[in-house]
Amino acid sequence: MEKKSIALACRMDSERAIKLSKRIFEFLVKKGEVVYLETRIAPKIFPHNGIDLNSMTSKNTKFLISVGGDGTLLRVANGISQSDPPPILGVNIGSIGFLDETNDRRVYKDLIKVLKGEFIIETCVKLAPYIVKNSEEIKLNNALNEILIVSSKNSKVLQISVKVNGIFLNRSYLDGVIISTSTGSTAYNLSAGGSIITPTLDIMQITPVNSFARSGLRPMVLPIDSEIEITPLRPRLNARIIIDGQQTIKKVMPHTRIRIRKANSHVKFIRLTDNYYENYFRRLRKKIIGTIRTPFDDSPEE
Amino acid sequence: MEKKSIALACRMDSERAIKLSKRIFEFLVKKGEVVYLETRIAPKIFPHNGIDLNSMTSKNTKFLISVGGDGTLLRVANGISQSDPPPILGVNIGSIGFLDETNDRRVYKDLIKVLKGEFIIETCVKLAPYIVKNSEEIKLNNALNEILIVSSKNSKVLQISVKVNGIFLNRSYLDGVIISTSTGSTAYNLSAGGSIITPTLDIMQITPVNSFARSGLRPMVLPIDSEIEITPLRPRLNARIIIDGQQTIKKVMPHTRIRIRKANSHVKFIRLTDNYYENYFRRLRKKIIGTIRTPFDDSPEE
Amino acid sequence: MEKKSIALACRMDSERAIKLSKRIFEFLVKKGEVVYLETRIAPKIFPHNGIDLNSMTSKNTKFLISVGGDGTLLRVANGISQSDPPPILGVNIGSIGFLDETNDRRVYKDLIKVLKGEFIIETCVKLAPYIVKNSEEIKLNNALNEILIVSSKNSKVLQISVKVNGIFLNRSYLDGVIISTSTGSTAYNLSAGGSIITPTLDIMQITPVNSFARSGLRPMVLPIDSEIEITPLRPRLNARIIIDGQQTIKKVMPHTRIRIRKANSHVKFIRLTDNYYENYFRRLRKKIIGTIRTPFDDSPEE
Amino acid sequence: MEKKSIALACRMDSERAIKLSKRIFEFLVKKGEVVYLETRIAPKIFPHNGIDLNSMTSKNTKFLISVGGDGTLLRVANGISQSDPPPILGVNIGSIGFLDETNDRRVYKDLIKVLKGEFIIETCVKLAPYIVKNSEEIKLNNALNEILIVSSKNSKVLQISVKVNGIFLNRSYLDGVIISTSTGSTAYNLSAGGSIITPTLDIMQITPVNSFARSGLRPMVLPIDSEIEITPLRPRLNARIIIDGQQTIKKVMPHTRIRIRKANSHVKFIRLTDNYYENYFRRLRKKIIGTIRTPFDDSPEE
Repeated sequence: MEKKSIALACRMDSERAIKLSKRIFEFLVKKGEVVYLETRIAPKIFPHNGIDLNSMTSKNTKFLISVGGDGTLLRVANGISQSDPPPILGVNIGSIGFLDETNDRRVYKDLIKVLKGEFIIETCVKLAPYIVKNSEEIKLNNALNEILIVSSKNSKVLQISVKVNGIFLNRSYLDGVIISTSTGSTAYNLSAGGSIITPTLDIMQITPVNSFARSGLRPMVLPIDSEIEITPLRPRLNARIIIDGQQTIKKVMPHTRIRIRKANSHVKFIRLTDNYYENYFRRLRKKIIGTIRTPFDDSPEE
Repeated sequence: MEKKSIALACRMDSERAIKLSKRIFEFLVKKGEVVYLETRIAPKIFPHNGIDLNSMTSKNTKFLISVGGDGTLLRVANGISQSDPPPILGVNIGSIGFLDETNDRRVYKDLIKVLKGEFIIETCVKLAPYIVKNSEEIKLNNALNEILIVSSKNSKVLQISVKVNGIFLNRSYLDGVIISTSTGSTAYNLSAGGSIITPTLDIMQITPVNSFARSGLRPMVLPIDSEIEITPLRPRLNARIIIDGQQTIKKVMPHTRIRIRKANSHVKFIRLTDNYYENYFRRLRKKIIGTIRTPFDDSPEE
Repeated sequence: MEKKSIALACRMDSERAIKLSKRIFEFLVKKGEVVYLETRIAPKIFPHNGIDLNSMTSKNTKFLISVGGDGTLLRVANGISQSDPPPILGVNIGSIGFLDETNDRRVYKDLIKVLKGEFIIETCVKLAPYIVKNSEEIKLNNALNEILIVSSKNSKVLQISVKVNGIFLNRSYLDGVIISTSTGSTAYNLSAGGSIITPTLDIMQITPVNSFARSGLRPMVLPIDSEIEITPLRPRLNARIIIDGQQTIKKVMPHTRIRIRKANSHVKFIRLTDNYYENYFRRLRKKIIGTIRTPFDDSPEE
Repeated sequence: MEKKSIALACRMDSERAIKLSKRIFEFLVKKGEVVYLETRIAPKIFPHNGIDLNSMTSKNTKFLISVGGDGTLLRVANGISQSDPPPILGVNIGSIGFLDETNDRRVYKDLIKVLKGEFIIETCVKLAPYIVKNSEEIKLNNALNEILIVSSKNSKVLQISVKVNGIFLNRSYLDGVIISTSTGSTAYNLSAGGSIITPTLDIMQITPVNSFARSGLRPMVLPIDSEIEITPLRPRLNARIIIDGQQTIKKVMPHTRIRIRKANSHVKFIRLTDNYYENYFRRLRKKIIGTIRTPFDDSPEE
């Protein structure tokens, strides 16, 4: 690849996603762009142009188009080069698609903007989870949204111990615990009662999931350079680690220490806007929190 | 005052606080220290050494001892010099006293440590609220914990509009809204459902108080350099502004814009510890969140 | 009044409410009905037909039309005869109007239904609050939605003791506590975190408002024949009692016992429906909780 | 069995539980009682006296002793005769044991009370879940605490439709939904945000688990004679049904209707008390919600 190309990845289990990807491919080829396709969809669109996700870097790829929803986008973000990732443009065809910047109706107009360079880049930190075995750390995949540690049985609560930077914070009974980035704060973290964090803030948030009344752990925001250590404590009850809702580590034995630190990689999103806050608040209001419409006369009765 | 002295302030409506202040005064005088007293308690302890809170600076005061609970400490923090405040040592005699570093039993031992210089300083940002009148900003007192904007009537919900950096975020029906610092995150913010924020993070958090089901505003953490603008919207329903639970601005008319930004002042607390996290987590666990004691056998039934 | 008449009450501080009331009055008079007006609006519509709210009984009144929102309806329900109240038809012109059955657009069509007898009656229990002074109970006004006991100062939390049927339940620090009926469960109770209770269930619910983390009181549902006793405990901090957001008892001294029992009166609402659940769930979904619209393809990504 | 005997069941995976059961067995035999043992523990205590749980009825069994925690008690309550169950005395050796009446220290003294008849019976309703296949209902096991319907994948939220008595209530995205009895209201329901329901009230509560911000479903209390119908809707995402945290139905396909109604059976607990509320509130306070200890001087600072 001498000239930088555009890459295209998409959800595989949706006919709509594949059709849309095809149309976007043709649209860009007509514009004179070289478009590469994630290996697994290449056969369905243009078999010669396949390339593996993990070969996509900012050196060979102007930007990567992800067609699907947040699930697709998380898979793509975790699959591309971690050291030098190209920026991603998310195209939503699903139900929420909070991280996506555009959708099936607006995508062609928005691609023209991107080709003209009319966009800003949102850079998001990622988290790196580790399992400690025989005092050695085994690194797991990075997370853009969150690392979830849950009981391996729906019906048995974990007891976990939480340490931060080696200092004991709390022991709690709960279904699980979420360690999320600011990017992930509007995802599972929000459903579990955590705060929304502006993505411009580099932090981690610990949020308990369905904790027992007297456990005490509450959503807590920590500096991004913190080291969180979670240890499941109950004898004979394994934990699971779920990374960005994509990858599951199934049998984490009691007393295994799970550590989470800032990852050495990041994700770049294309945002078609002058003002990042305007873009972020609009997505937040439309897709997540909503707003009240003021009625004609809103005065309270006297 | 040529030599730097120690200052003493205390809760006035508690005999216990005044007695303890007297003993601390005598203890320090015996150690050869010059001790000044907040004007209003001087007559009860040593009338000649009165000095106004707002004259206390880091230039004339080694440190200030606040005897009472968090309420006393907030009053003192907001009353001393805002541009160059001396560090504060909180002595708790009340029920929670989360911000206090010591209590009536440990205070003498701890004072010796302070006099030896065995402590670290925790520096906390403050928030500055403004009311906009005729497009001019009128500055109100700074807040160390939080600024609360509530309906002037317990039985009538506000409708507020929230903007951040001039960008519209959301309109909601609610009893009120809290804008808190990380220091204040464990106070009213926590009771209203906001996240705990490590005090080393400089942020603001917006937390709705009893919002109507579909309003959508959720606890949200923003960079400390943000400007939050809250506007109460319902005709004929005034709002109130309450600063650190200490000072109330009673009749804020509908459509008055209330702005909150980082203040140009800060508060310094004395912490008797090597490791700030250890100090903070211990106070958090003992006074606010608690922890579970693991039973003898905690395995789940198979 | 020999023949049973229709009564009309309305919000006074809204021109829209008064205009609509006038049109409803004229509509009904043309249909041959005798229409009486709440004394205070009579001068604005038809001065000769004034009648006091508390004179309206099911003996002299077929039904009462309340024009406004839930606030108007609560005022009317608490103002009419408590021993033998006529059924109420709520006409919403405000923002939510959950208890209202109709609105300004549908009211004429719906009145024809009511005149034909095509409706069912929803009967709602009320709560009676008492203050105990010198071991005597002083009865306060009945509540249809809820009795709220709050701190008299926005910035100082109450400590309350809760007893049920004379048995101690819990002591908590909090802003206040709500004792609500099932009718009131979708009002302030819901904003404070209480459960929604089907109105066909005769119960009371105790719901804490912004309780301090370790206080422990949680929303709790009790049989309607329970006696709840709330006692504010902190020295020098008064409580307030607010009944249905309408009436405030301002200075309730510390250690005053406040008792709540089922009232000897009830409220009857006209519901234009065959199936009460259908009516209730539709109002609940449209006005309070909402629902998700399923997207075209809602399958999760594999 | 001519004479009524006492039955003993216990947790099998705990040496402490088995040892305690042995001591209780010997204690009762010395008192002249005939004691039967659940088949699976008989070999460890007295092999000749084994009897299956499901053969235990109020006709042949004075009462049943359950040694373990709430898990053991739920297993036992669901294993004994459903049409004519003997009363159960729970002996807690675990961490919480909310439903248990006594513990390893008090059990001998309490057994003497039971033998003298100094107790009351708490009767608890159960719920019966059904799966609808080809318009036929397949009955699953009864639940004393709750029926949990969750996504089969930790990382994929369900979309469910909720109907009550055939009437549509709401569609929501969530991890799952709990349908609990009043007995189960202090268990998983409470961790998920549902209200506590006095066990004397016969109701069901629907409580969403980690619902997406705009879904709208809120904890909701319904009459015990309601029929709740939950249908998971997302293509290719199965649900699981978990009954009392004991039994799991693994592959519930999308669009399968799950119905929950009152069961035709109930559970009887032995309570060693004159006043049921006193017993209940003490267990609630000690094991679940806690209470605040009032400090020496609790007045707020002026």
